[in-house]
Amino acid sequence: MLQKELDGKRVVVALGGNALGDTPEEQLKLLDGTAKNLAHMVKEGINVVVTHGNGPQVGIIDEAFVLASKDKNSQVPFMPLADCNAMSQGYIGAQLTCALMNEFRAQDIMRSVADVPTHVVVDADDPAFKHYQKPIGAFMTEAEAKAFAKATGCQVGEDAGRGWRRMVPSPVPQDIVELETIRDLMEDGCVTVAAGGGGVPVIMKDGAYQAVDAVIDKDLVSAILAWRVHADMLIILTAVEKVYLNFNKPDQRPIDVMTTEEARQYCDEGQFAPGSMLPKVQACIKFVEAHPGGQALITSLGHAAEGLRGETGTLITAVSN
Amino acid sequence: MLQKELDGKRVVVALGGNALGDTPEEQLKLLDGTAKNLAHMVKEGINVVVTHGNGPQVGIIDEAFVLASKDKNSQVPFMPLADCNAMSQGYIGAQLTCALMNEFRAQDIMRSVADVPTHVVVDADDPAFKHYQKPIGAFMTEAEAKAFAKATGCQVGEDAGRGWRRMVPSPVPQDIVELETIRDLMEDGCVTVAAGGGGVPVIMKDGAYQAVDAVIDKDLVSAILAWRVHADMLIILTAVEKVYLNFNKPDQRPIDVMTTEEARQYCDEGQFAPGSMLPKVQACIKFVEAHPGGQALITSLGHAAEGLRGETGTLITAVSN
Repeated sequence: MLQKELDGKRVVVALGGNALGDTPEEQLKLLDGTAKNLAHMVKEGINVVVTHGNGPQVGIIDEAFVLASKDKNSQVPFMPLADCNAMSQGYIGAQLTCALMNEFRAQDIMRSVADVPTHVVVDADDPAFKHYQKPIGAFMTEAEAKAFAKATGCQVGEDAGRGWRRMVPSPVPQDIVELETIRDLMEDGCVTVAAGGGGVPVIMKDGAYQAVDAVIDKDLVSAILAWRVHADMLIILTAVEKVYLNFNKPDQRPIDVMTTEEARQYCDEGQFAPGSMLPKVQACIKFVEAHPGGQALITSLGHAAEGLRGETGTLITAVSN
Repeated sequence: MLQKELDGKRVVVALGGNALGDTPEEQLKLLDGTAKNLAHMVKEGINVVVTHGNGPQVGIIDEAFVLASKDKNSQVPFMPLADCNAMSQGYIGAQLTCALMNEFRAQDIMRSVADVPTHVVVDADDPAFKHYQKPIGAFMTEAEAKAFAKATGCQVGEDAGRGWRRMVPSPVPQDIVELETIRDLMEDGCVTVAAGGGGVPVIMKDGAYQAVDAVIDKDLVSAILAWRVHADMLIILTAVEKVYLNFNKPDQRPIDVMTTEEARQYCDEGQFAPGSMLPKVQACIKFVEAHPGGQALITSLGHAAEGLRGETGTLITAVSN
């Protein structure tokens, strides 16, 4: 998109949770850089909703409560994963909004900023609730894991030969509960941080939302959010500037543009690593197929502003340009 | 106020942190009742911003990180109090918004609901930063407290002869950072949960907000918020239906209405308990003096809807009616 075309456009930007570091101090430092890059985009006049991962962070919060609640002299209760997710949204969101406000002030950008901890609806009959497949938290020995499972009622399992971990379901996101608020804020010109860590998962039970212990893929939630706010672009930020074919092989080559049809074919060919680039490409396909007027972009944080102007990154579109 | 006069009125309701219970399950149950009572108010047509305390909750989060970060086998870092506060806003806010949405659905109330984790500006030169006076977290022996202080750089002190605890500053709130967003959401008819636990305290340093380790009195923040959104009423919820003169003495009598001048006089006479009713009355005085068109009400959660209609509670006004 050209600069004049960017003004007033709606963009959902998904930050990776691994880009946030392992401690509050590390996170604060990294978010300063993130805020600078996001501010470059906001300065083009676009309306941004920022989503973010929370893998390491929710892992740390969960581990803190597991360890502390075992201490018989402590007042600390066992904390359900849904509540740990809500905490991670407050934790990351508060630091990120503060970093954005500071950067906007430094760059003279007149935008308000807000974090909206978000609930995401999942299907109570999602098969993920029968087959817990997502490992989270610290590694344990088999004996520790079984004792932990007995004490907490949590499920545990072996994680790819690396040790035992807590296993949780990862159901498919269906809808964003706070959608109307996020849309209202976007229309008011507020840069909104939402759906952090894929959101607090809720099922609908007897006509009411009920939080459940699960984690939701943040890229898939970002795709749904981008579709539901009719975003012009979904930007999924990752470690690399572009998506590659034959990645890490002698004949690797970057992709500048691919249609959803081509992207599907590459997925089928096994071009993208599961748990890494594959879910990102799948999220882009999901968004563009639901909203063919929109485009999706995969690039790195440092290249996001250029990518938005069509100068780099890998673009996923409904039809070839 | 009469029912027809309530429609469209702006009300800030401050919930006590002790009303939220000590575990996530307890909190979930208590918040269902809270949501029912808040829904009765919203049903009158008023625009509500809800603030809440977080004393026990931020204490639990802080304790979890203190204990877990001591464990040398864990990945858990020491977590600054400002981040623990942000977590508590996500934790309580997510449960409260969910409870409100469920109750609104049950009562057919067409309102959106959102939690906005909030930063609150304090003065870097506030004398509170020189004299740490607010005890938080678990009780320790003197030896434990001194070891904790050495390991973390935190200050510790004796808490009224009951044992040693961590001591933190409690500076006076000056302004609400996310004010514009809260006001926008209020104008959109969204029931907003904001400034939980008094907010994440920030100072302005070199032109940027910087989070600081402190706690802010949530009633004072509620008073500032009520003033800055030009609320018609600030409602501070507590354990009792009305404020009493000569409380717990043979000649105790409830106060129906008092002017800010009368309220000040009662404060000077020592009528209200410090750390309990006194800061609530002081917050009400602060709001009404800043915004004489507004009124403040102190009552219990169960009497809030009646109180709003002028049927019960203790009203604080600028001039006698």
